[in-house]
Amino acid sequence: MAEGAALTRNDNGIAAALGVLKQQFGERFQTGQAIRAQHGHTTTWIENQIPDGVVFAHSTEEVSEIVKVCAAHRVPIIAFGTGTSLEGHVNAPIGGISIDLSQMDKVLEVNAGDLDCRVQPGVTREALNTHLRDSGLFFPIDPGANASIGGMTATRASGTNAVRYGTMKDNVVNVEAVMADGSVIRTAQRAKKTSAGYDLTRLMVGSEGTLGIITEITLRLQGIPEAMSAARCSFPSVEAAAKTVMAVVQYGLPVARIELLDALMVQAVNAYSKLDLPETPLLLLEFHGSEAGVTEQAETFGQLAEEEGGSGFTATTTPEERSKLWQARHDAYWAMLALRPGCNAVTSDVCVPISRLAEALTKAEGRAKELGLTAPIVSHAGDGNFHATILIDMKDEVQVESAAGFISWLNDVAIGMEGTCTGEHGIGQGKRKYLVRELGQETLDVMGAIKKALDPDNIMNPGKIFLS
Amino acid sequence: MAEGAALTRNDNGIAAALGVLKQQFGERFQTGQAIRAQHGHTTTWIENQIPDGVVFAHSTEEVSEIVKVCAAHRVPIIAFGTGTSLEGHVNAPIGGISIDLSQMDKVLEVNAGDLDCRVQPGVTREALNTHLRDSGLFFPIDPGANASIGGMTATRASGTNAVRYGTMKDNVVNVEAVMADGSVIRTAQRAKKTSAGYDLTRLMVGSEGTLGIITEITLRLQGIPEAMSAARCSFPSVEAAAKTVMAVVQYGLPVARIELLDALMVQAVNAYSKLDLPETPLLLLEFHGSEAGVTEQAETFGQLAEEEGGSGFTATTTPEERSKLWQARHDAYWAMLALRPGCNAVTSDVCVPISRLAEALTKAEGRAKELGLTAPIVSHAGDGNFHATILIDMKDEVQVESAAGFISWLNDVAIGMEGTCTGEHGIGQGKRKYLVRELGQETLDVMGAIKKALDPDNIMNPGKIFLS
Repeated sequence: MAEGAALTRNDNGIAAALGVLKQQFGERFQTGQAIRAQHGHTTTWIENQIPDGVVFAHSTEEVSEIVKVCAAHRVPIIAFGTGTSLEGHVNAPIGGISIDLSQMDKVLEVNAGDLDCRVQPGVTREALNTHLRDSGLFFPIDPGANASIGGMTATRASGTNAVRYGTMKDNVVNVEAVMADGSVIRTAQRAKKTSAGYDLTRLMVGSEGTLGIITEITLRLQGIPEAMSAARCSFPSVEAAAKTVMAVVQYGLPVARIELLDALMVQAVNAYSKLDLPETPLLLLEFHGSEAGVTEQAETFGQLAEEEGGSGFTATTTPEERSKLWQARHDAYWAMLALRPGCNAVTSDVCVPISRLAEALTKAEGRAKELGLTAPIVSHAGDGNFHATILIDMKDEVQVESAAGFISWLNDVAIGMEGTCTGEHGIGQGKRKYLVRELGQETLDVMGAIKKALDPDNIMNPGKIFLS
Repeated sequence: MAEGAALTRNDNGIAAALGVLKQQFGERFQTGQAIRAQHGHTTTWIENQIPDGVVFAHSTEEVSEIVKVCAAHRVPIIAFGTGTSLEGHVNAPIGGISIDLSQMDKVLEVNAGDLDCRVQPGVTREALNTHLRDSGLFFPIDPGANASIGGMTATRASGTNAVRYGTMKDNVVNVEAVMADGSVIRTAQRAKKTSAGYDLTRLMVGSEGTLGIITEITLRLQGIPEAMSAARCSFPSVEAAAKTVMAVVQYGLPVARIELLDALMVQAVNAYSKLDLPETPLLLLEFHGSEAGVTEQAETFGQLAEEEGGSGFTATTTPEERSKLWQARHDAYWAMLALRPGCNAVTSDVCVPISRLAEALTKAEGRAKELGLTAPIVSHAGDGNFHATILIDMKDEVQVESAAGFISWLNDVAIGMEGTCTGEHGIGQGKRKYLVRELGQETLDVMGAIKKALDPDNIMNPGKIFLS
């Protein structure tokens, strides 16, 4: 699927910008084929569209200089963190410059008294948590991949414990960003709340590099809970598992994670991680709180699960057992790929109101079966978010078409349930047409007017979010 | 303080719009002096600037029609809910039309399974909670006044329990809004989380009527906790009280409310509500959770308070005692006014990182004393937000100047501590110059570019947020 064909490549501008950047950045400016290819999209089934050059930036000032060069020559500029996005966000459909921010990887300050920290965009979430290890604090957002904080901010990422701690939207206090003219802004101060003008912080969170390059992020942190426990429970159907999740939400049980795996996903995990979980739909949970609190939560969950026919409920507080279970969940992507070696993974990312989750999961499972597709499902069930990931042989045109049809159908189902085509992956290239279906042209026009106002020459990550 | 002098009044356009609206809306269009005056700003010390006419809208379609009339004639349009804003948000510095949304007061749906509801903007927070009474759910945001949900959304309101439940930013799922050209958008679907394009929901929350008129709001709801308890504790100084709050935040104690009153405020409350609280700085708390949970929380709080010299710690779970304490807190505004009958209340609303709260409060108390100002303080201390409210005789020019100097000084102190000039009241007219000091011209230019893109003729609530 080649994306962005409607945009026009600016050969002269690109040649000029390459010359200037080579002179300014020397060895930190690279144009080798391999490194350029690595900076285009290299996961899922979206085609790799490579930039013309890659600059490794070391400071906000440098990012501003690079943007100014690109602005002067009307050359696309694409921010790159770790390249783990799933919707073609780092592709260069009409070429341009990739700004690699991975070397801007400093934790600039930790304000333990305020439960916040300020980091450069190239800091990864694992590196941040390693840095915080002795402070009694942690950064909760966990999208699975060891993504960069900059990339997570730009895509409004979330993951397994958003049900308790929210998404990047809820955990970014402010950002510093370089705008399309090279100017540098900070979107807010460091107070915990503010009513000071338009919420530019939230506008930049999830803007996917199309409005500016995020060069610093102030994040909220959490105290490491006194106690954590994990639990798992098997169910006769995804419907029963999803109904249990609804009951948990209704009850107001403050679970830290509540993940649903369908039977096929459990099979994959068993095979890959050498476990012997019952091969029926599974809920995997984590509780955070006081010692008494987590025990109380696990007990309450056990009762709610039993009412829906849950069995094999196992709670544990030993770190080893907890890690083993969650490691298996984190390896789910690799486990899926191992189900059909040599295949590509085509991800979906719908999110529906929790009251519709059981129905949406049941429909998705049924439709995949009808189409003969291998499409294991994992769900951040407490948020109504799930990923049916189709494993296809890209050389088999029938399969490719069938997968495309499934994704389109699933997005329509979710949208029809007042849900979204993306709970956490973002729009990128892959979901642009679904965004219009979801929100309508009037709403897209408002987004487009903002884009045009802040980036009149469309140099900031062109060909993403918007169809034209 | 007359605001908005730089804008130009469009007499011909206004005359034309008045004619059209009179014809279209008949009795629901009013131009009487009293009703117009009531629809300008009537609290605090900001001058009342009245609109030329008031339309009582009944539907989104009508709001769209009204906006189209105003757009055609380039006439200012100002949304009005209950008129409880504190920074001149509903003033009409160059005249125009006030759209009164108080009759759009229907709760359109409650989705108990999803913990959300959809309401019209004129629903007040008390009316919503009355509507929800039998559902086991409640809407937590409580700014004190019985404000409309539309107004609370437009100003990014919060209040006493934001420390636990967040602000309007965190509790609005999506809005429907009429934009400056009369088009109607919905900013997002109803899923609990989304990465679908720019976060227009958060852009509209806190936009103060300057980007569009909010005509529907989907809100998150909370389950009514199994148990609630209240507590109070007195301290030898605001510093000791604030340090206790810091300890509570550090500990991660999930207090539902933690309010700080300085000694002068306690005196005012005692006098007004006929209580006999010790007239030293006071913390007033509320805990939500399970029966065991609230007991555990209150005990932990008691220990933390004791370490800072807290005394007279009293916890209670009876609804009567709880209401009595909180009623006194809610009446704080009237209690303050009763301290100096006939005076005006000049509010401030700074919010600082929690680590700086003790210092900020101490400085504010000291400065007011130096200047001979009566300025009792209440603080949503868990968020680092506080209001020093100066009681002045508007006929005494020295006092007025002194109050203006104090407010300016206090905002600079907060900004210097990486805080904000407004935690929850918004910018309106009164804080426009502080917004620039706080965020810098580059950031204001980005806000201005968005405003210009979405409202090129500056008809949506002109003279608010921006100085020019």
